[in-house]
Amino acid sequence: MSTTTFTFASRMAHLTGSPLRENAKRAMTAKDTISFAYGYPATEAFPMDTLRKISNKLYTEYDPNVFLQYAPSEGYAVLRRLIKERLANNADIRSDDDVLIVSGSTQGMDLVVKVLCDPGDVVLCEDQTFSGAVKAVQSYGAVPMPVPMDLDAQSVDLDALEHMLSTTPNVKMMYLIPTFQNPLGTSMPLEKRKAVYELARKYDIVIFEDDPYGELLYFGDPIAKMKSFDTDGRVIYSGSFSKVLAPSTRLGFLMANDELMRKLVLAKQVADSHSNYYWQVMLAEFMLHYDFEGHVEYLKRLYRERVKAMMAALDRIPQTMLRYIRPTGGYFIGCRMADDIDPDTFYDIIADRHVAVIPGDVMSVTGHGYERDFRLNFTRPSIEEIDRGIGIIGEALEQARITEPSDIENSCRSGREPVLAGAR
Amino acid sequence: MSTTTFTFASRMAHLTGSPLRENAKRAMTAKDTISFAYGYPATEAFPMDTLRKISNKLYTEYDPNVFLQYAPSEGYAVLRRLIKERLANNADIRSDDDVLIVSGSTQGMDLVVKVLCDPGDVVLCEDQTFSGAVKAVQSYGAVPMPVPMDLDAQSVDLDALEHMLSTTPNVKMMYLIPTFQNPLGTSMPLEKRKAVYELARKYDIVIFEDDPYGELLYFGDPIAKMKSFDTDGRVIYSGSFSKVLAPSTRLGFLMANDELMRKLVLAKQVADSHSNYYWQVMLAEFMLHYDFEGHVEYLKRLYRERVKAMMAALDRIPQTMLRYIRPTGGYFIGCRMADDIDPDTFYDIIADRHVAVIPGDVMSVTGHGYERDFRLNFTRPSIEEIDRGIGIIGEALEQARITEPSDIENSCRSGREPVLAGAR
Repeated sequence: MSTTTFTFASRMAHLTGSPLRENAKRAMTAKDTISFAYGYPATEAFPMDTLRKISNKLYTEYDPNVFLQYAPSEGYAVLRRLIKERLANNADIRSDDDVLIVSGSTQGMDLVVKVLCDPGDVVLCEDQTFSGAVKAVQSYGAVPMPVPMDLDAQSVDLDALEHMLSTTPNVKMMYLIPTFQNPLGTSMPLEKRKAVYELARKYDIVIFEDDPYGELLYFGDPIAKMKSFDTDGRVIYSGSFSKVLAPSTRLGFLMANDELMRKLVLAKQVADSHSNYYWQVMLAEFMLHYDFEGHVEYLKRLYRERVKAMMAALDRIPQTMLRYIRPTGGYFIGCRMADDIDPDTFYDIIADRHVAVIPGDVMSVTGHGYERDFRLNFTRPSIEEIDRGIGIIGEALEQARITEPSDIENSCRSGREPVLAGAR
Repeated sequence: MSTTTFTFASRMAHLTGSPLRENAKRAMTAKDTISFAYGYPATEAFPMDTLRKISNKLYTEYDPNVFLQYAPSEGYAVLRRLIKERLANNADIRSDDDVLIVSGSTQGMDLVVKVLCDPGDVVLCEDQTFSGAVKAVQSYGAVPMPVPMDLDAQSVDLDALEHMLSTTPNVKMMYLIPTFQNPLGTSMPLEKRKAVYELARKYDIVIFEDDPYGELLYFGDPIAKMKSFDTDGRVIYSGSFSKVLAPSTRLGFLMANDELMRKLVLAKQVADSHSNYYWQVMLAEFMLHYDFEGHVEYLKRLYRERVKAMMAALDRIPQTMLRYIRPTGGYFIGCRMADDIDPDTFYDIIADRHVAVIPGDVMSVTGHGYERDFRLNFTRPSIEEIDRGIGIIGEALEQARITEPSDIENSCRSGREPVLAGAR
């Protein structure tokens, strides 16, 4: 793109992504909807009693200047230290890099793009990914480019990645969700993480390791974070407390090398001075005195039951109609319907029956394609809703099948385009 | 500037403003400092008991999904309605324009520059102004340009403004703090506000009316906000709850026309999804059930005593050494030392005696000049500290005077530059 035609205003009006189809919108807004759509925590996930106790402590025992006054842009020093300790103890991240408190990982990505990317720079992403990150890239005139996924390997396709790195000018960064990917639910194996890191070295680019779900491991052993073997300081690690404390708090953090950190702190200061201080102190108190680790373990038990229930329900749908990726943690299951199912008919039927999912094109970097993919969230619905909702999805798939060749012939005759794999 | 040389990264590393001189830094960091520097609320300003009660109510009576879950980017609907009602009742702003909740007015300005300004666009500002706004402009490659103030008229100089508007290409916006200006403490008279609005019409530019202190009127009658007579929807009104609730909450709002609002909501979504929801609900509860208006009246009584004490103390300093602008509200008094006082000597002496102020160059749009001006905050220090600190300032001014012609001759002979008005 030409930088002379670049305008912020025009970019802001033309962000791609989130072209939520009418039927999906309809499903989400019905009153009795079973929603597998948004990535919300369960209602049972909020530790109301503990939060009430800590909040009372703040309002009765703390100096108001500690949590109601203006605060450093870097964040509450106690919380930053506690986060570094947790990263070392829980995730084996022992970097000397500093930690900046941000207003959710959404802000983390916004700030990183602002300080790192010029208009026209390219940010490589998994082909389906968090649409907020894609919009952040676009909002600064940088260009998000999808790297094809190798779903069997639960990783970006390394050959495709190297080809893109060697042929695309101005690649500044890779945005990756290596652990419990959104929307796919994949987790990159260690050897793939190391191979991607080596490619980042070879082509001298930065990796943004977005890890908002990283603590929520339900099955098997954790896989080392990319930041844990980052000897160059080229990995920006992004964490969030939206999923383990509460989304409304807007608390996340970035860990980045000193040179980047200086710019990030300045960008943070310009963006909103500092993140909400009451919640920074609340979280630090929670970690210090109210068994935060026990709370995270509780969440893992709660969500493990839900993902097991969802996988059991999905296993009742024949693989000839639906395949899905078994996640080991996180929030989402990525599904793909078979080629002989008409996506629009399917989305229409579940909308009519008040079941909401996120269709793949919403999470596509380019804003289109992947209509046969959809994302299921399992943390928010109850187990009863999971059973009922996945049952409806199974019935809808069956009804949306184009089994008879005559269907295609009919549709051709009547002027409708034939509905075939990849035809949309 | 050429857009081809524009980079975000380089802008972020080279923001002007805040070149805080060493002696000012020294003064601010001493343990027993009397600080007139930062714009902090008084410790007594935080309604701890009321906040504790409301917080308890949330944690015991509210559905956690209302205040701990993800929220709309526009903000809590109840709070947005209450803000519109307050604007109508308290400030006679009866616009149909919508209200967006933002994370402090700092974020409000960041978002507005992002959606309105292209690199190279010009934003006109009062010549001394809030440095965060100046940095926001610069951080997107736009150019802040100072409009000279007519201090006697408590307004930007209208002739200078029209000259700039008619000769400067690409002026997109005027950033103004018409009420209780930061750092000057001036308030633009109504006829000046109307004249500026007419110029904005004539040259078709947007006005950003930043009004973070607007509710804190201590003397006389309020002056109509520019937004109250904005028939074109060209005024973006920016409000804040940092000064009337607590800075740490990071709660402010923007009121803007529908076309701008659509872009602002998108930019807000990319920036941090939404502002802290707990505090949005806390504030709405405060307004609905806990006499928020009474709290604002309490703050006005508290600060009225402090500003009266500060003006009384300043009146004990001869006008031949110091002149200041008598504010009718807000947080600050703008001071100017006489031409025969050496600013650096003055700042050194008060630093040694642990009194902190903000020198004018820090608030200068260009990052230099105005060394003889300094800003005093009167909300944070106690009346005892005000008396003692202003006393020290008076003594320091006396000591920093260059009364003897021989001083100048000596300094010339010894190779030092003569210290004269405007020589620095």
